Amino acid sequence: MSEKNWEKRIAYLGPEASFTYLATKGLFPHDWHIPYKSIPECIEAVSEGKVELAVVPVENALEGSVPLTIDYLYHESELFVTAEVMSKIQQHLLVNKKFAENKEAIEEIYSHPHALAQCHKYLYYNHGGVRQTSYSSTAAAAELVSQTEDRCIAAVANFSAAEKYNLHILEHNIHDFHFNHTRFFVLSKQNIKHGLVPLQAQTKTTFMLTLPTDVSGALHQVLSVFAWRKLNLSKIESRPLKTGLGNYFFITDILADEEEPMLKGAVEELIALGCKVKSLGTYYTYVTPE
Amino acid sequence: MSEKNWEKRIAYLGPEASFTYLATKGLFPHDWHIPYKSIPECIEAVSEGKVELAVVPVENALEGSVPLTIDYLYHESELFVTAEVMSKIQQHLLVNKKFAENKEAIEEIYSHPHALAQCHKYLYYNHGGVRQTSYSSTAAAAELVSQTEDRCIAAVANFSAAEKYNLHILEHNIHDFHFNHTRFFVLSKQNIKHGLVPLQAQTKTTFMLTLPTDVSGALHQVLSVFAWRKLNLSKIESRPLKTGLGNYFFITDILADEEEPMLKGAVEELIALGCKVKSLGTYYTYVTPE
Repeated sequence: MSEKNWEKRIAYLGPEASFTYLATKGLFPHDWHIPYKSIPECIEAVSEGKVELAVVPVENALEGSVPLTIDYLYHESELFVTAEVMSKIQQHLLVNKKFAENKEAIEEIYSHPHALAQCHKYLYYNHGGVRQTSYSSTAAAAELVSQTEDRCIAAVANFSAAEKYNLHILEHNIHDFHFNHTRFFVLSKQNIKHGLVPLQAQTKTTFMLTLPTDVSGALHQVLSVFAWRKLNLSKIESRPLKTGLGNYFFITDILADEEEPMLKGAVEELIALGCKVKSLGTYYTYVTPE
Repeated sequence: MSEKNWEKRIAYLGPEASFTYLATKGLFPHDWHIPYKSIPECIEAVSEGKVELAVVPVENALEGSVPLTIDYLYHESELFVTAEVMSKIQQHLLVNKKFAENKEAIEEIYSHPHALAQCHKYLYYNHGGVRQTSYSSTAAAAELVSQTEDRCIAAVANFSAAEKYNLHILEHNIHDFHFNHTRFFVLSKQNIKHGLVPLQAQTKTTFMLTLPTDVSGALHQVLSVFAWRKLNLSKIESRPLKTGLGNYFFITDILADEEEPMLKGAVEELIALGCKVKSLGTYYTYVTPE
């Protein structure tokens, strides 16, 4: 029953010091972390067997689902979720140490669009006239700031990026909403649960459901299937099917194991109703320490 | 019964040659179009009385809802929808005319993140190694390309941007999915329908619903209220409430007028069930010509 004595290869949405890196290191401290440039490349790395697992962001408490993750898992991959990780998101305003003193002189602010959106009010009221530029990640924005000495630009990024790129934290915790977590999926080719069972373990199962006909009546039927069984949905969200405005599939998280008889019965009925059911499997939730 | 003889001031998500500009010009050819830098600024311009109307994107057939529009309308404004406009989205790969011949040499590709996502497969298979940089809009990316002569960069943008910035279209229609429309809201302080009644007019009403307790049971109840009345929902989508992962509000589009007795009765029952109902009003749908 001993663990295999080799490191797992784990793809994550890079670069180093990204929020995804922090989540990956939290759950897999002793494995081999390999940064990839994009979410599709992380997913393809698992599909093609280059790595055993991939960690990608799937939902943020403020911004909602990460469309690229949801859509790629639905349309382009046959992977399963083996675990989910929740991480608290704290954003800071970082500048090159050379400009640690002159707060007024910020010429441009770089970050991932989600991070800029999460700090929208702070930036609007404190740096309203300053141009905001979208960047591929918060960590890449921090790296750019570390490399730019001829003008004072700032990045919105996490503490780990400030450390890694040796930046000055001009303002701590500039995110508008106090409560902000991001949820990450750990993806695998195998439909298994990640090994360690967390405290107060509650299993969760994610289905992607495509309804047979019109949205309103069919969604009502689908929810009836869950409701009379008292199966608790912790999430239901629609995503466009890419076949036209008004055509959706639904991502549902159910607080139950797909091997439980009640959930098995629900799936059988959903299929009988004409739904397409794509299961991403059953998994546990892990929380990274602050 | 004559129209007032002055131009309406209409804010739109700029810059000129953006997809929002095309939608705005399509519905209001003879009015005063004023570009704003961001969606919140467009909405605030109406709230503060600087303009009569604002046109902002609300949903794309591929990318889904525009979170900033939905969230700002829910959390920060008391505006109504007076019309919606549907526009077909066609993306092209544009380069400076100076580089019209050397296809291999593209060093970097700029565009709005949604446009890059819409052309993800084309870019992955044809320009896989080329860095993609998010930009504030497709038109701003086109402008950047027009101003950059020392290296060959490209923009993903529409035909109008190619014309305005005098760029070479290296490749037409590079979007991955053939069917791609964007839906725009025309916002006003007044809860009225835009004047001209379109052909085959079908009224639509948008509600933002906050459920009283747990998602699964409450959503089932809400849908029951619409289902037995045969009120047709053309859309239901969840957005995070920003109070924690798992707390959502729902945007619903109902194909009915909120003055109809059936819809009035539904709203009364929703309130009795403990739902918070925020109406964005009833409006008609317009389609811009291709």
